[in-house]
Order: sequence, then structure tokens, then C-alpha cells
Amino acid sequence: MTIIALSADSVGTASAPQPGQPPVPTGSVGYVSPQFLTFNEPLILASGQVLPSYTLAVETYGQLNAQRSNAVLVCHALNASHHVAGIDAAPPHQTGWWDNMVGPGKAVDTNRFFVIGVNNLGSCFGSTGPTTINPATGQAWGASFPLLTVEDWVHAQVRVADYFGIERFAAVMGGSLGGMQALSWAITCPDRVGDCVVVASTAGLTAQNIAFNEVARRAILTDPDFRQGDYAAQGVVPLNGLSVARMVGHITYQSDEVMASKFGRSQRAPGPDGDYRYNYDVEFEVESYLRHQGEKFSRYFDANTYLLLTRALDYFDPARAYGGDLAKALAPAQARFLLVSFTTDWRFAPEHSREMVRALLKNQREVTYAEIDAPHGHDAFLLGDVRYHAIVQGYYDQIAQRLGLGERCETTGVLA
Amino acid sequence: MTIIALSADSVGTASAPQPGQPPVPTGSVGYVSPQFLTFNEPLILASGQVLPSYTLAVETYGQLNAQRSNAVLVCHALNASHHVAGIDAAPPHQTGWWDNMVGPGKAVDTNRFFVIGVNNLGSCFGSTGPTTINPATGQAWGASFPLLTVEDWVHAQVRVADYFGIERFAAVMGGSLGGMQALSWAITCPDRVGDCVVVASTAGLTAQNIAFNEVARRAILTDPDFRQGDYAAQGVVPLNGLSVARMVGHITYQSDEVMASKFGRSQRAPGPDGDYRYNYDVEFEVESYLRHQGEKFSRYFDANTYLLLTRALDYFDPARAYGGDLAKALAPAQARFLLVSFTTDWRFAPEHSREMVRALLKNQREVTYAEIDAPHGHDAFLLGDVRYHAIVQGYYDQIAQRLGLGERCETTGVLA
Repeated sequence: MTIIALSADSVGTASAPQPGQPPVPTGSVGYVSPQFLTFNEPLILASGQVLPSYTLAVETYGQLNAQRSNAVLVCHALNASHHVAGIDAAPPHQTGWWDNMVGPGKAVDTNRFFVIGVNNLGSCFGSTGPTTINPATGQAWGASFPLLTVEDWVHAQVRVADYFGIERFAAVMGGSLGGMQALSWAITCPDRVGDCVVVASTAGLTAQNIAFNEVARRAILTDPDFRQGDYAAQGVVPLNGLSVARMVGHITYQSDEVMASKFGRSQRAPGPDGDYRYNYDVEFEVESYLRHQGEKFSRYFDANTYLLLTRALDYFDPARAYGGDLAKALAPAQARFLLVSFTTDWRFAPEHSREMVRALLKNQREVTYAEIDAPHGHDAFLLGDVRYHAIVQGYYDQIAQRLGLGERCETTGVLA
Repeated sequence: MTIIALSADSVGTASAPQPGQPPVPTGSVGYVSPQFLTFNEPLILASGQVLPSYTLAVETYGQLNAQRSNAVLVCHALNASHHVAGIDAAPPHQTGWWDNMVGPGKAVDTNRFFVIGVNNLGSCFGSTGPTTINPATGQAWGASFPLLTVEDWVHAQVRVADYFGIERFAAVMGGSLGGMQALSWAITCPDRVGDCVVVASTAGLTAQNIAFNEVARRAILTDPDFRQGDYAAQGVVPLNGLSVARMVGHITYQSDEVMASKFGRSQRAPGPDGDYRYNYDVEFEVESYLRHQGEKFSRYFDANTYLLLTRALDYFDPARAYGGDLAKALAPAQARFLLVSFTTDWRFAPEHSREMVRALLKNQREVTYAEIDAPHGHDAFLLGDVRYHAIVQGYYDQIAQRLGLGERCETTGVLA
């Protein structure tokens, strides 16, 4: 049994708490900071447009081993970023979006794996996108930033692998839109993906999925402050459109059941005898919650980025080039696969995952599939359901065993 | 066996085609025109506000019998009106929204029943509401029109029954929001409802239902052309907000399955080799359809009315006054009940209907319940599924039999 010891030095971009910073909880990778990798080779996009150069914001956790065999790429969903795990060293010291999954002793154990989080090209958290400067004009790209596909993201991320000298990832993983990227990695770069972990995802949006995206986009595009995407240059932000877009998205991330149990028909501030207020202000708790989510989102997320990301979701359809035959589309993939879905996820219902499983089995791929009876809808992929995490953990334990990375050490917390 | 003959005269407000009008199809009640009934007694609303007078737009089909025992009140859903059946005598000669259900020889057989359609108070198709003149100011009510509840609608409609001298309806029926009204009639006026037909409805919106309504309202309220509801006076219309509101509503009326089979991932105008267009115009057929629905709606529906109707939906919750005990809330009802739900209706899923059935059975009410395995989602209540219509028809045949109204005559079409 090999236990790989954790030290502050070995945690990639992680660092020990500075004076005044709160202590790091057990199982956290600690304080982390992004790196910004700039690639100056032109990137040819699916649309035919060419990006002459681009930067990607990246965070890493754990240590890349000498054989460079222990790297895991984590791909993010719509509104997330490269900040997967740990505590951002910069205020407001946000915890990574998948911190419950990635860390020392966790399912994706940073004592054994070198984990890379990368902000998607076109996103708004440090990677090149609508909010960054177009070197050709000296102005922010804004609406002139090219539309992207999931495949474009994979091509952009290949250079991150090259930068770290990683010929083959131990695993590429992601949930939702991140799961699409993981699947696309397995198809596009079959010899660079050992295992592919696809959670709460799909090989193609349904008409209903596209319809919800279209509602969100219409809300943004018809906000007078959108200014044809030129809002930043004109000193405004389409806050209302972004807010409505997020609200409608948010409903699709949660199950009917979980909304019922969280909010039910609770009133926010009922009158005497529980009277209704008879106006269009917040009457029910669920309205307050949704408005809050919408407003918060509109203050930190970029509208052009939202359009771009939802369009990439719409466009993802690997079977399209094969007359709709997903098995044919997945034929190049050589990875082993773990797919996970959640029974109450009505955004990407289990049937989406089952379809991928059937197509993979048709190709005689090794597939593990778990359908978790969790109440939380699509958002379940971000939550800590013990059965879900146990499955991912068991799966990564197998990967580690095959690669000779040693066993998971439950009791860590060196940085704490 | 008594067959009640149909003649042009006996069809209430119906009339024979005028020169230049297309012929009337078999089974239609023919050309119809609304009546406008004005009530000058003040109406006290649930909010405590008082309407000094109001007008309701009404259409009737068939003939009220001498005993006035054969009247059926049909209550409408969100965007519908008093124009339930037949062809509007005024251009563009629209067919009634439930014409497949109501007519000579149809499930609700106007050869035997006298059917009343009434536009809800607060709606925008001829009844008093935000778009009509407030006599106190001489200006359109606009945003100053009081908020209403389902119970307010029932109280307003009671005067329609009184106007026609109907002490007791053979049946009160409706789908969706109309079903809420039917249920409320049975609770509020137990001695005036013989049978109560509640289709694809609910005794209370879930948090998710309210959340979708809230998204729709936010889209309208934050449209700069809404002008705090004063848009009409200021010569504008919040078209974008209304359009987004309708789009999100429309998604909830259809099942995932039916959208998939209607639109799938079909592209609207693909480039060569089926290429994507890489922009935010219409790329997929489902986007085109949704935009069209939204734009069409925004041109004929009033924004203040939309707010008011969705709020009334939110507010409906008869169990609320009984600590959440629906059985207690339904205890006053004396009607027999037919409830129908549709398996793929995810707006008001079958469980909503089952809950009402259980509460009615607890009160030893006579209940017929049908759960139809139809693919069309919530919209199924407007469509002509043969099993659904056969059940409603059989139910109305029983009502007719009990009331001695004669048998249904299949072969009609006197007006054709």
C-alpha cells in the first residue's frame, strides 16, 4: 500500500492560509489561485472562424506524478468555472463548485490524482471570451466573439493537456454541460482519455431543452439594455433579461418535489390571518428565492457568455454527423465509462443517460451506469448524495488501482 | 325517447351563415355572437376592494328548457374566453376554443343542454377588466384594476346564472384554470351545481407552478414598455415581456414527448450539409414555433390581464382556510364529480387530480375519475382524444338521463 503524503507544496496551485484567512476544513485542497495559460497558435472553430490566440484560466489540485498518468480533467457546467475545489485565495474566498467531490480523501482524491479545472473558452471567469479584449481591436469582444461548440472547447483544452505534458488523462469528467465535454473528449481524443465520467448529462438536447434555452435567450436579446450585445461598451447591463433567463433555468435544475418541500406554498410576509397581499411583489417564498437567484446571477454573469453557452448546449449532437446514430458517433471512443443520472432530473432525465449507455454497449465499451433515486433534480450532480459519491469514489479507486496510484487515505487535512 | 330538434332559432345566440360566410361544419353550433351582461350591484372582492358594477361577455348555445334544468356553465382557462363553441359571426370568424367538446351531438350536446360560456371578470375579451373604462375616472383601469381570485369569478358568474333564471346548473365544467372555477363553484354554491367536471386541473399550484408564473410576470413587469401597467395610456405595449411570458407558459402546456415528436432537433434553415448558422436567430424549428406563439400572443393579449390571471392561479387554494385539509375544504360540495387528468400533463400532473379525488371520497361524494394515457401534456384537455371525449360524453349522457333531457342525436348539422 502506497500512501502519497499531502503537503502544502504538493497541492499544485494551493497554498496555506494567510494571516486573517479562516482555517481550511479537513478534506479541502486549501487555498487556491488560478493560472492563466495563453496559447498563441490559431484555433479553428467549428463555425469556420479562427481565434488567433486565447487564454484559459486553470486551477490544479494534487500533484502530477512522474509518469504523468494521474491527471483528471474536470469540465464545468453553464455558470461554473475553473474553480472546482478548495477556497479561492482571493476574497470573497469562494469554495469551489465541486469541492464535495474533489479533495484529499474525497471521491476524486487529490492525494492520488492531479486534478485540473479549466474555465471554458468563451466563459467570463478569466478565459478568453466576450468580456475580454480582442487584440485586433483593443476593445472587448462583446457580441463579436465567435459562437462555440462543445468540440471547440475540447480542442481548446487539448492544449492545456499538452502544456502539462499529459498525453493521456486518467479521467475526464463533468456534469451537465461538463458531461457533454467529457463525452466529446472521449470521441474526439480517444487515445487521451482513460476513463470518462459523465454525470447528469446528455448526447443531445431535446426540443423542450432547446425551448427553455430559447426563452432565456429571448429574455436577454429583447432586454433594451442588451444593445445588440454591445452593452458593456455602452455602460449598461441587461440585468432584467439575465435575471429572467436565470430564473427559468433555475426552475429546470430543481425537481418539482424539491421545490415543493423547500418552499411549498409558503407566503413571504402574509397579512393578518395569513391574508394575501394582492399585488405582484413577492407573495410566496418561492418567488423571493427565484428573484434572488436571478438578481444575484445578473450581477456576476455576462449576458453574451450566457447566450454562447446555451447555444453550445443546443448544438451538441455528436450523432448528427451519423444520421442520428449515436452508436456510430461513439464508435471512436476507447475509454471506460461511468455514467450517472438522477431519477428526478427532468432537465436531462435518466433516459438521456440510458441512451448513451446503450450506444456505448453497442460498441462493446466497458460501461458502469448508476441511476440514483435522489429527490434533487438536475442539481443533484452538485450535491453530496452518499450513494452517488460512493459510486464515483469506488470508480476512481479502480482507476487508481489500475494505474498503481496507491489507496485512498481517508484521514487527511494536512492543510487544516 | 325524446329528440330535441335543433333549429337556428333554438341555438341561443347562434345564427345562420350570412352571405359570403363559409358554411358551418356538421356538429357546430353555427355562427355565434356574444351578449354583454352588465351588473350594477357592487361586487365585494376577496381583496376587500369593491367593483361598483361590471360587465361580462357571454355566449350561449342550445336552448334553455322550460324547467331551466339543462344549463351547463363552461369556465375558461388562462387565455381563452366566452367563445367556447361555434364560429364567431365577426371576422376573422374564429372557432370556439372547446368547439370539439360542445355542439349538437357532441360530448356536451347542445341539442339537450343550454351551454353558457362567460369571459372571466378581469380578462380582455369583452368583460370588465384592465382594458375597459373605469367609470369613476373615465380612463381604462389599467394597473389600477383590482386583483381577483377564483372565488371572485364565481361570485361574478352567479349573477349570470341569476340573469338566466338558472337556480341550479346541470353541470359546471372547465379545464385547467376553468377546472379551478368549476371546483370553486361546487364549494361556494353547493346547491347550484348538479355535476362538476374538472379537467386537467388542481386544487392548488405547486411551488414549481408558481415559479413559472413568476418568471412570466417578471418578464412583463421588467419590460420597460410595461410602464408600471400604464402602457396603454402611454401608447406602448410590453410586447417583449408578454412574448417571453407566453413562451415559457407554452412549454409547460406541452409534454417533452410531444415537443420531441413535433420538432425534435429539426433545423429551420440549415446551411449546406446541414450546417448550423452560428447565430441567435432561429436555428431550430422549436424556436421558430415558440417565437411565433409568443409574438402572436403579445399582439392580442393584455399584459395587466396576464398578471391578474396568473396571480389568481397562484392564489387558488381552497384548503388554505382549513389548515391545508382539502377534504374539509370540499366538505360543503354536494355535486357529483367527474375529474379527468392526462398522464403526460406535467403542469397539473395526475397527482393533483388524485388528491382532489381522495378528498371528495373522504366526503362520500360520487366521483368518476379518468386518467388518460395521452401524449399531449396539459394541452390534451383542449384536444379531441377519443377516450377522453367518450368519457365526458358518457358522463353527460348520464346527466341528461337523470334530468330527462332525452338522448343524444348523433346525426345533426341542421345549420350546415
